Amino acid sequence: MAPLKSWLSIPPDSDFSLSNIPFGIINSKNNSTEKRPAIAIGNHVLDLKAFSKANGFSGLPSLKDPLTIFSQPTLNAFAALGQQTHNSVRSYIQDIFSESTSNPQILKDNASLQKEAVLPKHETKTHLPMQIGDYTDFYAGKNHAFNVGSMFRDPANALQPNYTHLPVGYHGRASSVVISGTRIRRPNGQILLDKTASPPHPILSPCRNLDIELELGCFLCASNPLGTPIRIGAEAEAAIFGFVLMNDWSARDIQTWEYVPLGPFNAKNFGTTVSAWVVLPSALEGFRVEKMQNGTEVLPHLREARDDSVYDIQLEVDLTTPEGDTTNISKVSGKHLLWSFPQMIAHHSIGGCPMNVGDLLGSGTISGNSERGGDLGSLLEACQGGKKEIMIKGMDVRKFFEGWGYGYYSRGLWGGWGEGWLWGVCGDY
Amino acid sequence: MAPLKSWLSIPPDSDFSLSNIPFGIINSKNNSTEKRPAIAIGNHVLDLKAFSKANGFSGLPSLKDPLTIFSQPTLNAFAALGQQTHNSVRSYIQDIFSESTSNPQILKDNASLQKEAVLPKHETKTHLPMQIGDYTDFYAGKNHAFNVGSMFRDPANALQPNYTHLPVGYHGRASSVVISGTRIRRPNGQILLDKTASPPHPILSPCRNLDIELELGCFLCASNPLGTPIRIGAEAEAAIFGFVLMNDWSARDIQTWEYVPLGPFNAKNFGTTVSAWVVLPSALEGFRVEKMQNGTEVLPHLREARDDSVYDIQLEVDLTTPEGDTTNISKVSGKHLLWSFPQMIAHHSIGGCPMNVGDLLGSGTISGNSERGGDLGSLLEACQGGKKEIMIKGMDVRKFFEGWGYGYYSRGLWGGWGEGWLWGVCGDY
Repeated sequence: MAPLKSWLSIPPDSDFSLSNIPFGIINSKNNSTEKRPAIAIGNHVLDLKAFSKANGFSGLPSLKDPLTIFSQPTLNAFAALGQQTHNSVRSYIQDIFSESTSNPQILKDNASLQKEAVLPKHETKTHLPMQIGDYTDFYAGKNHAFNVGSMFRDPANALQPNYTHLPVGYHGRASSVVISGTRIRRPNGQILLDKTASPPHPILSPCRNLDIELELGCFLCASNPLGTPIRIGAEAEAAIFGFVLMNDWSARDIQTWEYVPLGPFNAKNFGTTVSAWVVLPSALEGFRVEKMQNGTEVLPHLREARDDSVYDIQLEVDLTTPEGDTTNISKVSGKHLLWSFPQMIAHHSIGGCPMNVGDLLGSGTISGNSERGGDLGSLLEACQGGKKEIMIKGMDVRKFFEGWGYGYYSRGLWGGWGEGWLWGVCGDY
Repeated sequence: MAPLKSWLSIPPDSDFSLSNIPFGIINSKNNSTEKRPAIAIGNHVLDLKAFSKANGFSGLPSLKDPLTIFSQPTLNAFAALGQQTHNSVRSYIQDIFSESTSNPQILKDNASLQKEAVLPKHETKTHLPMQIGDYTDFYAGKNHAFNVGSMFRDPANALQPNYTHLPVGYHGRASSVVISGTRIRRPNGQILLDKTASPPHPILSPCRNLDIELELGCFLCASNPLGTPIRIGAEAEAAIFGFVLMNDWSARDIQTWEYVPLGPFNAKNFGTTVSAWVVLPSALEGFRVEKMQNGTEVLPHLREARDDSVYDIQLEVDLTTPEGDTTNISKVSGKHLLWSFPQMIAHHSIGGCPMNVGDLLGSGTISGNSERGGDLGSLLEACQGGKKEIMIKGMDVRKFFEGWGYGYYSRGLWGGWGEGWLWGVCGDY
């Protein structure tokens, strides 16, 4: 399929081509305090409030009251309208920006609205795209679960018996989810340095083994009442608003000491970063591939009619040192998941748990399994639990984040259509 | 101290004496759709919106704009004003209702406002008192942790090494917290019946081991920014808005299979019930007692200046069968906690996790340790993991909730000043 052509200048290598059209929340120089919805295209964004105010959606009469929907400080109201509306708005915007648009008078030939609503991206600032009621982190990256389980136990018992029967997950801390670029402070916490001392003598210390976890995040656009599950299949698929990149910052030393028996807590709740632009499932339709093989026959509430329910999209992680040297430490496809998001949604709600518009689900860390390496989603795996040093530019080596001031940058190519910026500066106390 | 006397008729055994004055959210026959704040007193409530509208707070000029604060559908705006304001409002209302009030013209001698704002409790309906951003459940009931650990491991290794060093907790599901009286559906979930089969063969089934957990809930009235902990002492104490009773419904068979390695998930997120009336810490000041002895010297961020940071208040659990027979199955003091709520708050935020006004913390199940029994906070402990039957009225026995239609009723005397109603009907699919 030839790429769609736009009258707007879009750099050929842009992740925000006319085929993508992801949604986010911005403010601009003109509106420095008022957040509003926007889409990203090339090096620009379209301010959807300004566009609605100027009757930009007059060619899409099925969208009722766009000005109200796009005057909100989050995407929740838009998400709640459902996938059919998301897709018709995306298609309409694709048409409006097309070289051969059927509505040239709306924007292509309307210089004053272009000036008002089509803003250079660098003059805008992005914000958390959704109001997140609850956040849940899964553990569906089987290679990651295997690598970590092998380290803590042994390869023969790396995966727990339940792992292939259900998508293991835990409730995260919604208040600690932040937008790409937010400074994350290196957390203080209880750490057990000498694991052989009896009785144990934990200390309170800034985390020494600060790690990243490369994940896909999924925002929901549906709700279910208490006691009524969202069923696998069309119902669970329709609950997906879109995808972001996610960094589940992890304090490994705090985690090891605290997590028995109720799971990770302070090791995770000091910050989880998501990218700014939410990519709709319709934009990723062409990248569906089969999820990882599961030798176990799953129970009916998790059985999908089709196996191609994950996406073969390229994810990358770069590390930038305080001196500014950047090293790529991972390139991995998003397909390395044993469970799809529709399966996670169906399992999450099977007991009646109410899901809501704006809820965030994390996939779990995505790692590949190549022999050559370079496709791992966490430093814990890359440094083999602290046994191996990771070469980075600037003639330096690392295991975890040491000292002050690291950049973490993750880029999801989405097959050429998407981008995420995750960055954190970690200052000691 | 002689009990305070009111001009309003308050039954002598009422939990809502003039010494309590708990806050909640109601609607009434007059205002069937509009939720508003209220306080409970005897068999009545005072509608705080109606009271504000009629200038009822004119004798408390330090309270700015009471009509706006008390026109909200939750207590969050009131909570955010801080403890000094909560206490002055409580004292003012105590004075207004006192036999010897200094402001008789406001309510005592104002029959028309009495008619409008002092409503019979049975003509009102209660609602979730706070908008809950995040909910965290701790595990601070040491007797419960010991009993459960003894069952799953052995008494010598019942408590994990971290247990006496930090308040163990996990993030819960805020969307599943419901108000007393809400029908809870018996959850479906994955259950492993034959624990010896290899490979394992879990089934999907309605929960067979449905349990209760008697807990204290604590609502917060303070916020901290990402990266800045709430410190132990005055700062953590000032973050407490008030207390409720809590039932952390638990599906034991689902929990056993799913919880390794990331903690409880679907076993908990089908519903958590809280009582309607939030009791302020100032109302419980006289009931402070020392928390449980901790042989371990705790780290500085958990060190409290005073040890009397838990409350000796009587908690009770009654079970009502579908036939209507009610049996008291537990009477236990709220003091059986190894960690106080200020310690939980300090630990939760030590790594920088942002807490918010309206957040809910659960204490963990509260069990006593008497030899005679009858003071356990869960059926799991009362039936010794399924080994022993619990006698209930109606010539019947139970281990967990079986079949359809149970009532669970928990009453917290708060030393004579408080009440909670927790109830659930569990219907199979």
